[in-house]
Amino acid sequence: MEQIKISYHEMKSVFKRVLLKYNFESSKAEKCAEIFATNSLEGVYSHGVYRFPRFIEYIQKGFIKVDAIPKLVSSSGALEQWDGNLGPGPLNAEICAERAMALAAKNTIGCVALANTNHWMRAGLYGWQAAKKGFAFLAWTNTIGNMPAWGATESKLGNNPMVFAIPFGESAIVLDFAMTQFSYGKMEAAQLENKQLPFAGGFNHKGELTNNPEEILQTGRALPIGYWKGAGLSLLLDIFAAVLSAGQSTREISKQKEEFGVSQVFIAINLKNLSNYPAIEKTISDIIEDVKHSVPENTNSRIRYPGEQAMHIRNINLTSGIPVNKIVWGKILSL
Amino acid sequence: MEQIKISYHEMKSVFKRVLLKYNFESSKAEKCAEIFATNSLEGVYSHGVYRFPRFIEYIQKGFIKVDAIPKLVSSSGALEQWDGNLGPGPLNAEICAERAMALAAKNTIGCVALANTNHWMRAGLYGWQAAKKGFAFLAWTNTIGNMPAWGATESKLGNNPMVFAIPFGESAIVLDFAMTQFSYGKMEAAQLENKQLPFAGGFNHKGELTNNPEEILQTGRALPIGYWKGAGLSLLLDIFAAVLSAGQSTREISKQKEEFGVSQVFIAINLKNLSNYPAIEKTISDIIEDVKHSVPENTNSRIRYPGEQAMHIRNINLTSGIPVNKIVWGKILSL
Repeated sequence: MEQIKISYHEMKSVFKRVLLKYNFESSKAEKCAEIFATNSLEGVYSHGVYRFPRFIEYIQKGFIKVDAIPKLVSSSGALEQWDGNLGPGPLNAEICAERAMALAAKNTIGCVALANTNHWMRAGLYGWQAAKKGFAFLAWTNTIGNMPAWGATESKLGNNPMVFAIPFGESAIVLDFAMTQFSYGKMEAAQLENKQLPFAGGFNHKGELTNNPEEILQTGRALPIGYWKGAGLSLLLDIFAAVLSAGQSTREISKQKEEFGVSQVFIAINLKNLSNYPAIEKTISDIIEDVKHSVPENTNSRIRYPGEQAMHIRNINLTSGIPVNKIVWGKILSL
Repeated sequence: MEQIKISYHEMKSVFKRVLLKYNFESSKAEKCAEIFATNSLEGVYSHGVYRFPRFIEYIQKGFIKVDAIPKLVSSSGALEQWDGNLGPGPLNAEICAERAMALAAKNTIGCVALANTNHWMRAGLYGWQAAKKGFAFLAWTNTIGNMPAWGATESKLGNNPMVFAIPFGESAIVLDFAMTQFSYGKMEAAQLENKQLPFAGGFNHKGELTNNPEEILQTGRALPIGYWKGAGLSLLLDIFAAVLSAGQSTREISKQKEEFGVSQVFIAINLKNLSNYPAIEKTISDIIEDVKHSVPENTNSRIRYPGEQAMHIRNINLTSGIPVNKIVWGKILSL
C-alpha cells in the first residue's frame, strides 16, 4: 500500500472543497474540514482521512443532514438536553462541548446531553479543546451494537468511546478509549498485514480468546476491556447517554442497521472556579513526573501519559506531512 | 476454612458494639455498622466483614479519626469541595454522596469532591443509595499505588474503584469496578485454594501474562483492565480526584506507606428534573431486556446486568445468613 504525504493545509482544503460541493455552508465546511484534518494530523487516521469517504456516503444516504444544527430541548440548572437533528456529528459535538463549558463557566460543573446526533469521529478532539480552555472534561457516546455482553455471542453493546481530559501546562492529558480492546479498524489492518494482535482481542469459534484478528472478525466477538468490566461499563454508558439525552440507545440504533442518531453526554468542570486553582498545574505535573519515572519493564519501555503520543505524531506530521494511502487519497480527490 | 452463617442483624449489632467500644458516637456506630453489614449481606465480604478488623486497626493507628466529620471548604455553583478530616471513610462518603444529591436536586447535576478521607469500603453502596433515591450517580476514589503504569514494573497507579449507578424499577443497575483485572483479595484467595485465575491477571517475573495468582503476587504487577486503557483511566481518575478535591494524589498517599487521606469525587444527576422523566423507566428496562436476551455463549451462560448478582446474594443471605470464616468471626467478637 503506497503511501504519500499530504500537508495539513492541503488536506484541510481538499476536505473543505468536497464539503462545499455537498452543500455545506462555508463556515461549517471550514470547521468540519479542520476537524477531519486535525484528527489525521494527530495520528487518528481512522477517524480522520480514512473516515472522510464514509462521512460523505452517509450524507448521500441522508443519515447526516448537512444543514441541521442542534437545538436546545430543555434546560434545568446546570444540565441541558439538546437535539442534534441528525446534523454532522463533529459539528454537533463541538457545539455541545462548548455549551457544557458555558454551563460550567457559570455553575462550575455543566452537563449537556445530546440526542439524535451522528458519529463525532474522535472523542479526544473535544477533550483537547476543553482542556486547552482550562476545563476538566468528560464525555462519551453510544454507538451501534458491535460488542457482545459478557457471556453472549451477539453484539448488543456498543464500543461507546469515552474521553477524560484535563489541562497539562500548555498541553493536555487526554484519554480517549473505546470499550473494545481493539477497534475493528485495528483488527482489519492487522488481518490485511497477516499480523497477530499483541494481546487477545476477542473470541474464536470455539469460544476461546485469540490474538488472531481474522478469527475475531469472523465471530464478531470483540473483547471488552477488562472482560465483564468493560461490558458493564459499555452498558452503563449507553443507559446514561440514552436517559440523559432522551435519545436512542444502542438497542434502537442497532435496529436501524446503520449508525446514525446516536446519543452523547458532555460534562465540563471549570477549574478556574476551584479554591486550589493556582496549585493545580503543579499537582498535575507532579503526578505525571512521578508516573513517567516508574521503573520501566525494560530498556525499550516508554512510559507515556494519555495524549503524549498524539502530540508527538502531530509534530512529526506538521513537519513531514500526513501519511495517507495513495489510492484512498485519490478517491477523496475525486469525491 | 470452616464457615458459619451470621444473620444480618447479629452481624450489624456485633459491629456496632465494637465501634461503640472504639468511641464511635452512637448514631455513627449504628450507621457504620449498617454499612459493613450491608456490604457483607450483598456479597462484598472483602469490603464488609473481612475488612472490619483492619478498619479497627486503622483507628488504633490513628489513620482514621473516629470523631472527625467532613467540612465544607469551598462552594462554587453546583460543585463543592469538602475536607474529610480523616474521618471514617464510609461515613464521609455517605455524607458527600448525599451532598452531591442535594446539589443535583437544586442544579440537576451536582458534584462534591472530597479530600483527606479514608477508604469508603465499597463504591457500589453509594451507587445503590443514590439510584434508589432517583439519581444517576457516578463516583470514584483514588488509592495507594497498587498497579504499575503500562510499560512499568513499579506500582505508581492506584486501582481507583469507580461506580456508575442508575435506578431500575424498584432496584438499580450498579457497576462497581476497580482498575485492576482482579483485586489483590481475589488473587490471594485463589492462591490459598491453589487455583488459577480464569483469565490472565498480571505479569510474572519474565514479563509474561499469567493466570497464576502466586506469580502475580510475587511481582506485584497486577494487570490493568484493558491493559494500557485501564492504566490510563486510573491515571485520569487520580488526577481528577486530586485536582477537584485539592486533596492527595496516589503519589502522595503512596509516600505515607499506609492508605489514608485519599481523594474522592461524587457526581449526581437528578433524573426527576429531566424532560423525559416519565419515559426513563421504560428506556432502561427496554435496554436491559434486550441485553439479557442476547444469544448466550452456551447453555450455562447467564447474561447479567451489573448489580443483579448483588441483589441475588442479598436475598440468599437474608434467608440463610451471611457466610463468614469461623476464625475471622471469632476475632471480630474479641475486638
